[in-house]
Amino acid sequence: MTLFRKSVEAMVGYVPGEQPKAGTKIIKLNTNENPYPPSPAVLPAIQAELQHGAERLRLYSDPGATALREAASELTGVPANQVLHGNGSDELLALLFRAFLEPGESIAYPYPTYVLYRTLAAAAGAGVQTFDFDTDFNLPQGLFGCDAKLVFVATPNSPSGTQHSTDKLRELARSLKRGVLVVDEAYAAFSPTNALELATSEPNVVVLRTFSKSHSLAGMRLGLAFASPDIIAGLGKVKDSYNLDRLAIVAGAASLKDTAWTQQNVAKVVKTRERLISGLRSLGYEVLPSSANFVFARAPIPGGGKSRVELARGAFEHLKAHGILVRYFAERLLDDGLRITVGTDDEIESLLSCLKDYAG
Amino acid sequence: MTLFRKSVEAMVGYVPGEQPKAGTKIIKLNTNENPYPPSPAVLPAIQAELQHGAERLRLYSDPGATALREAASELTGVPANQVLHGNGSDELLALLFRAFLEPGESIAYPYPTYVLYRTLAAAAGAGVQTFDFDTDFNLPQGLFGCDAKLVFVATPNSPSGTQHSTDKLRELARSLKRGVLVVDEAYAAFSPTNALELATSEPNVVVLRTFSKSHSLAGMRLGLAFASPDIIAGLGKVKDSYNLDRLAIVAGAASLKDTAWTQQNVAKVVKTRERLISGLRSLGYEVLPSSANFVFARAPIPGGGKSRVELARGAFEHLKAHGILVRYFAERLLDDGLRITVGTDDEIESLLSCLKDYAG
Repeated sequence: MTLFRKSVEAMVGYVPGEQPKAGTKIIKLNTNENPYPPSPAVLPAIQAELQHGAERLRLYSDPGATALREAASELTGVPANQVLHGNGSDELLALLFRAFLEPGESIAYPYPTYVLYRTLAAAAGAGVQTFDFDTDFNLPQGLFGCDAKLVFVATPNSPSGTQHSTDKLRELARSLKRGVLVVDEAYAAFSPTNALELATSEPNVVVLRTFSKSHSLAGMRLGLAFASPDIIAGLGKVKDSYNLDRLAIVAGAASLKDTAWTQQNVAKVVKTRERLISGLRSLGYEVLPSSANFVFARAPIPGGGKSRVELARGAFEHLKAHGILVRYFAERLLDDGLRITVGTDDEIESLLSCLKDYAG
Repeated sequence: MTLFRKSVEAMVGYVPGEQPKAGTKIIKLNTNENPYPPSPAVLPAIQAELQHGAERLRLYSDPGATALREAASELTGVPANQVLHGNGSDELLALLFRAFLEPGESIAYPYPTYVLYRTLAAAAGAGVQTFDFDTDFNLPQGLFGCDAKLVFVATPNSPSGTQHSTDKLRELARSLKRGVLVVDEAYAAFSPTNALELATSEPNVVVLRTFSKSHSLAGMRLGLAFASPDIIAGLGKVKDSYNLDRLAIVAGAASLKDTAWTQQNVAKVVKTRERLISGLRSLGYEVLPSSANFVFARAPIPGGGKSRVELARGAFEHLKAHGILVRYFAERLLDDGLRITVGTDDEIESLLSCLKDYAG
């Protein structure tokens, strides 16, 4: 007899993208990390917190992560009481389930999208309503007016890289009967637009940001939620008190203040992304327009005996055999393509050259 | 109309002990931190992870925190697949709720104990069975054979500092009809004994440890759970993938390996604790025996017009006015005493001298 909840017993845990061992010579284009280092302001901020033999680490961190939230407020113009800090946006997503979802209530999201929404729903034993994207990845009509308690929309969406307009998202938020719209903007920095204004204008919208992509701090686990003061206060009640450690707080605050560095890195990634897209297209791949730091590329329409799915999987294995990790999803609507993180120009060159060698 | 769960709307968030602003001159004896710095091995371990301008922080941390879990396994002899890492033991406590508690199920714990169990139950909308300790803080009989899904026992207990025998805890675990016994050993390092063996011998026991007390790493947010391979695997399914950042993992591993440092600090704290206890007793305080890095001291039996509760609260305010923070709980069975963290000898000297001046 298991002691676990039925939902937990039945579920499969989230499987994160492969993490090669330290020291392995790998081109890692599988988990949408930033190829460039974090802001040069991060290291001195951490060092300052480590003074006197790291003596300060014996004391608890600030439960309110004030330095981080105030930096976020200064940068965005959103008042600090409308900002909450998370141990990665993953923790904030889990928090939303704990705060809003009564037993028996359901969540909704378009398909395909970030797999974690499904994993969290499975763990919580929540009902799930999914609505397939059309081929252009427009917001599915079924989401509008649905009765889910939490509606998750990633924009730019993973793994497609496509983005939704703020007007459309506002319309979705207002259409919900009794639900909260969670706008997951993990990749928004790589797009010219974002929907942050909805966090202050709509009472039922939560906008999430992460430091793992544009801030090159995936290893420090930092995320932010923006929403109405009421929502932020309620989420704060269910959050672990000391959810961020001392070094994460100062690293995040320092990175937020160095906007020049972030913008410069983002510009480099966007430039390489366009190069990657045209390179893939010239190899016959069908690439969706991307507003993120990755692209989704469908395998070329096959001439020989192999299907597109076989070609995509084959290309994934071929790359892996040559030390290049990309992401392959063995799932409906995704199994004929690859999600490829935008690396450095050199890394993308190696990828394209390796793909060119792959006969299929 | 609120969008939050009813339980979340109704609850009051956990109120952590006061955190004075950096730079404030305060003797901080209110949140059971260690007065001594972390192991000298911690700083170089963090520095190594920050090489090359902190370049490595752009990459996700190890979801399995292998370095940390293997160090814990080496130190304790518990196999690594029976160890799970948490963002503080607070995260592990929240995880236990998510993993084990079906809607409608309840938890149980003795009273008074760590307040977070109650807060987490309130957030989850879980039923709560509490059983009062007797004056000697023996395990209440009502816990034995109860039908709660999760039973929480802190040992040494906070805020009393008292400890339960491993035999009694084993008996409790075996008496549970369908429940998991969570043995919260945050303070076990300050006692000559602990109940870790139950994690490997009993299929329904989870033992929790923290780095916030004996390892002087409260600011790094690190905790460990020890249990059967089945329980650890199930908890791993509901855990956030990357719940520890890169610096926390290496800091924790380095600290675990430096057993000499930890033991030496613990010995100093235990010595000062005994000094604190006799000092408080000579001032007329009634002090419970303590196996932790804090003591619970009931105010002297009053001679004048004031009650014990008034004296305790008055002493708390008097200390605070003189820059000494201790913990006062305005709760049943606790409101006539103070919980005082064991600081350095000098800090304890100041505390005792300040208490001596307090006329009441």
